[in-house]
Parts: sequence; C-alpha cells; structure tokens
Amino acid sequence: MPPFFKRHHRKGDGRELILYGLSPLEEAPLPEGEEAFHAAPHLRYHPLRGEWVVYAAHRQERTFLPPKEHCPLCPSREGAFPTEIPFTRFQVAVFENRFPALVASPPPPPAGLPVPAEAARGRCEVVVYTPLHTGSLATLSEEERLLLAWVWRERYQALYSLPGVRFVMPFENRGEAVGVTLHHPHGQIYAYPFVPPILERESAAFRERPVLQELFPRLEAYWIDQEEGFLAFVPPFARYPYEVWLAPWERHPGPWTFSDEEMAAFARLLGRVVARYDALFGEPFPYVMAFHAAPLGEEATFHFHVEFYPPKRTQDKLKFLAGTELGAGTFVVDALPEETAKRLREVL
Amino acid sequence: MPPFFKRHHRKGDGRELILYGLSPLEEAPLPEGEEAFHAAPHLRYHPLRGEWVVYAAHRQERTFLPPKEHCPLCPSREGAFPTEIPFTRFQVAVFENRFPALVASPPPPPAGLPVPAEAARGRCEVVVYTPLHTGSLATLSEEERLLLAWVWRERYQALYSLPGVRFVMPFENRGEAVGVTLHHPHGQIYAYPFVPPILERESAAFRERPVLQELFPRLEAYWIDQEEGFLAFVPPFARYPYEVWLAPWERHPGPWTFSDEEMAAFARLLGRVVARYDALFGEPFPYVMAFHAAPLGEEATFHFHVEFYPPKRTQDKLKFLAGTELGAGTFVVDALPEETAKRLREVL
Repeated sequence: MPPFFKRHHRKGDGRELILYGLSPLEEAPLPEGEEAFHAAPHLRYHPLRGEWVVYAAHRQERTFLPPKEHCPLCPSREGAFPTEIPFTRFQVAVFENRFPALVASPPPPPAGLPVPAEAARGRCEVVVYTPLHTGSLATLSEEERLLLAWVWRERYQALYSLPGVRFVMPFENRGEAVGVTLHHPHGQIYAYPFVPPILERESAAFRERPVLQELFPRLEAYWIDQEEGFLAFVPPFARYPYEVWLAPWERHPGPWTFSDEEMAAFARLLGRVVARYDALFGEPFPYVMAFHAAPLGEEATFHFHVEFYPPKRTQDKLKFLAGTELGAGTFVVDALPEETAKRLREVL
Repeated sequence: MPPFFKRHHRKGDGRELILYGLSPLEEAPLPEGEEAFHAAPHLRYHPLRGEWVVYAAHRQERTFLPPKEHCPLCPSREGAFPTEIPFTRFQVAVFENRFPALVASPPPPPAGLPVPAEAARGRCEVVVYTPLHTGSLATLSEEERLLLAWVWRERYQALYSLPGVRFVMPFENRGEAVGVTLHHPHGQIYAYPFVPPILERESAAFRERPVLQELFPRLEAYWIDQEEGFLAFVPPFARYPYEVWLAPWERHPGPWTFSDEEMAAFARLLGRVVARYDALFGEPFPYVMAFHAAPLGEEATFHFHVEFYPPKRTQDKLKFLAGTELGAGTFVVDALPEETAKRLREVL
C-alpha cells in the first residue's frame, strides 16, 4: 500500500467527512453551513418481485447548501458560501450523503403497512474524486487514480465492518443522460442491509460455476483493453450497446485482496476504459458504473468485476428502457457486442 | 362478446395486417410501399443474470416507410406516400412490427459464440388504437376502448397458440420521456419463446401465495379508482412515484377468462387510469404500461394485472434509473405511495 494520509472530520450537521491525501491534512476547517441533517428512510417488501424498495421521502427536498452557481463538491473558499467540504487541501473526500437512502440510525418503519417493512439501515457516501471541478476517471493523474482505488478499498473494509451491512457498492452516475446535475467528478457508495436482487442472481451463478473464468479464454472478439492481470471487454451478452466490464483474470472477491501491483493495474485500466469512452464521440460519455464485489458470505466464489452501462446507442440517440426491459426484464439490443468491442478497441 | 368485424391482409412485404372494426371491412387496399422486410434477431444467454438478451441489429436501420412529416400509423391516403395501413375504414389495426425483436422464422444464431445462443422465435406486433392521429386510452369512446380490449384478448389467444410461445405481453410506451417518437395512439405486443425474468419471479410468488388477493383488503389508503370487480391502486411497494396497478378482484390468468361485463369494466377502468394520469399535470402523462398475464403453464395460480411505470416524479423532473436501480436492482423512491395514491384519487 502506498502511503497516504487520512483525516476524519465531523461536519456541522453531524455527518462524517473523511479526507484522503498524499501529503499531511492539517489545515483548519473553514466555516460550515448550519442546516440540520434529517433523513428518515425505510424499506418495504415487493411481494411479487421478491425485493426490497427503499423509500426516502426526505430526498424530495433535495437542495444543496450553496446557491446554484456554486458546486457543493468543490472545496469551500474563504468568505464564500460553504460547500460540502470545508477544506482546500486534499486529494479525495468521502462524506455521508446529505440525502441518503440508507442511514446508520434509521427510525422504525411506519406501522400498519400492508406489506413487510424494515428500517433502512446502512450508509450512503459521496466520493469526491478530486478537488478540481472538471475531469474524470480518465483525466486524473496516475497517482490520484491509484489513491482513489485505495480509498474505495478502504471504504469497502470500513463499510463491510458496519453491523448489518450485507453488500457494499461503489458506483458512479455520469452525465445528464443518467440524471446527474453535478458535474464535479464524483461517485457514490451504498452499503445495503440486504443482498440486492442483481447481486443475488450473480452470487447464485458464481456458486454454480466460475462464470467469468470460463468466459475469459473465449473473449478474443470482445476484449477492448488490458493490463497485467486485468481485462476490459464488452460482454458477449451485453444489455447496453457500449456496455463494458472490467475484471481481474484471477478470481478476487473484491479489491481488498488485490496486491499492490494489482491495485495499480486496476486503477490504470479503469482510467483507460473511461478514456476510450470519451474518445468514442469526442465528448464526455455518460454511463452508470457499478462495482460488483462479493456480498457478505459469498467471498469463496464471487468474482469481482466492474460493469459500465452507457445509455447511448449513438452519439445523439439514447437507449431508452421501455416495455420489454422494464415490464418483462428482457433487453432488446440493436448493436452487436463484437462490433461495439471493435469500435472501443480501435478508438485509442 | 360484442360483434366485431375482422379482416386479415398480407402487406406488400409479406407482413400480416389485421383490421378490426364495428362495421364491415370491405374497402380495396390502397397501394403499399415496396421495401423488403428483413429481420434476423437472435438470443444470447447472460450467464450471470440468468436471462436471455435479444439482439436485433437490423433495428439500427429503423426508418419508416413514409417521410418524417407523415405518421406511419395513420391510415394511408389516396395519392399520398403509403403508411403502414393501406386502409381508411377500421377501428383498430394490428400488424407485424417492421423492426421486430422476435420473428416467426428467425435464422439460426451465429455459430461459435462464447455463450449459449438461440433463434429469436416469437412475434412482435404493433397495435394501432384508432385511425385518428391524436388521442389516448383516455379519449377513445367507450365503444372503441371495449373493442380494443377485445382485440388484446383475441391477440392473447392467437399468440399463445403459436408454437414455442411461452409469454405474451401487450404493452404501451407513451411519451418522449420513454423514448417514443410516434405520437399516434398505439401499443405493442411481444410473444416471447421464454418466460422473461420479471414474469418468472411473479409466477414463483403466485405459486406460493395469492399475493394480490391477500393484499386487496388492505389497500384502503392506496386505491385510486374502481369498477365492478376491478381495482386501480398505487402498490404500497411502488418502485416509481406514480406507479399504478390495475387488477380484477377475482383471480383471472388473463383477460381471456373475463366475462363480457368484466371486459367492459376492465376497459372503462383502464381509460380512467390514463385520464387520471393526464389530469395530474394537465398534459399527456408519459408511462410504460405492461400487461402481466399468466405465462404458459402458470394459469392455475397467476393473477392477471396491469402495471404502469411513469418516469416522472414531478411535472418537470424525471426519475432516472441509475446506480442503485441498474447496478444493484434496488429502487430508491422519493414519493410515498400513500401520497401519490391520494393525489391520483383526488385529481378527477
């Protein structure tokens, strides 16, 4: 592990903020906003799909501390309206989401609901990749991206150690096409008190067979990039035109078992996948990126991988999820994975 | 069953067109376009999610017969560019989709794929609700809407009798927010050669317990409208802010077991749900509507219902599906079903 510095800070409204840096983090905090933090989510059970739905009505009031023209994820500036981060010198910042779907001390669910309900226990974090307002996983320096990978790893360990957490998922929503209005480079982490449905299915598949390891030798037409020990490819069963997966050749339950060299290769390849995306249409490419690591108890068979779902099917056309995808769960795809893989392979 | 007339027609490119009307359908067809119909979809298996994905690369060329300013779903006019329907007098028209995901005689799948593949056998139909270019399920006359309900019922029976079909789903994508560019009132029907994942889960739930019948007596705070024998409600576990379900109180596997009176009540309530949606923001309300009838073999326990998924959370804000929904399968909802139900109940 490369040396990095870490500093815990309790924000004015009680939320935790953690700074990570390559040099000491010792400055005094700037003044903070004084709004109270209030979140009362709960879970309800969907009896036909067999899954939990999270209700977070407080999110309707989603506003941000600073006025619209200021980015809440930028470092605060002396004398200016406070942002989420009352510090100026750090590399990566992680803080508890102001409008969380899951919280450490949720209220009990409403009584008398017609379906089973539970407290929405867990944690939602925001991960600010850089103090700079513009950029992406592709434009971070190699050193910054490696630190970010170590931060994810550290958060995996911290969040899986919370009582009741069964699945931890770092993810990134990027671009207005997936609903993002904050352009500052950032991702999120959810720590769930249950294994979400997609992870349940993946876990069941991995318990039966080493699906990815069986697939790897057959991906000649599908790979787009690689690094020592890691492969990026369009899955031959992609559900989005430019879907990309990134995985280690050897089975790891999550980044927490990577060697130092594997951490570096992982970070480099992640950056190059995003660079390939951005080169495709010569503009920032929107996507949802989700890390799939082993849910609690699945460490012996689950194979960590990253899935990117881009909403674009051409530069100016979106793939909408509609009747067959949302109503039946069956995706219809216009583009062949062999062809999108070729395009992404040749674009850099 | 009310008397209605039906006429089969083979289009110039070989696709089937069926007209339905309340009076005889005897006019001579107008001239048709002469483009060749070509569709070569195939299925691939997603080994981690355990589901089929449909590849329909020919859909990339999606264009429509008529120039952009003409609606392809309107009746053709003498001397004008031909539309999909070379007739002018009918109430409802059903034809095979020009860019289908599933077809009666698919080619074999490509050889040598790294995952299991199958021919994409099935059928995709377009259902034109009315010859008029504007309108909706809400604005059809009672007589027209009832005929449409009988057409769905007739298509269920026709499509479930095709060899290899295991699930038939009428659905409607409405509005640009769900990707629809044709505004002519219409829906679609897919006849799948497998049971899609969401229907597999619902079937398993119904095999265990009569989920909906257990729920109905507890929906006081959730109902929005009703008709003799039918209830429209926001499910207490809604995954979209204004999600609405419509179901018969008694268990029916599909509309094909409704009495004549039940058909009429079903059609009326469907129209009123859409009228309520349109009244909500005083403008056509976008949605995906999916009919969930019993997949083949599930007739003894499956309870037919209609699910509406609207993408709006307020008049001008969309609910985007992002990290937690697409990456984990867990929905986070800002609005409480009790509150959206109240709004939809009181809006008319």
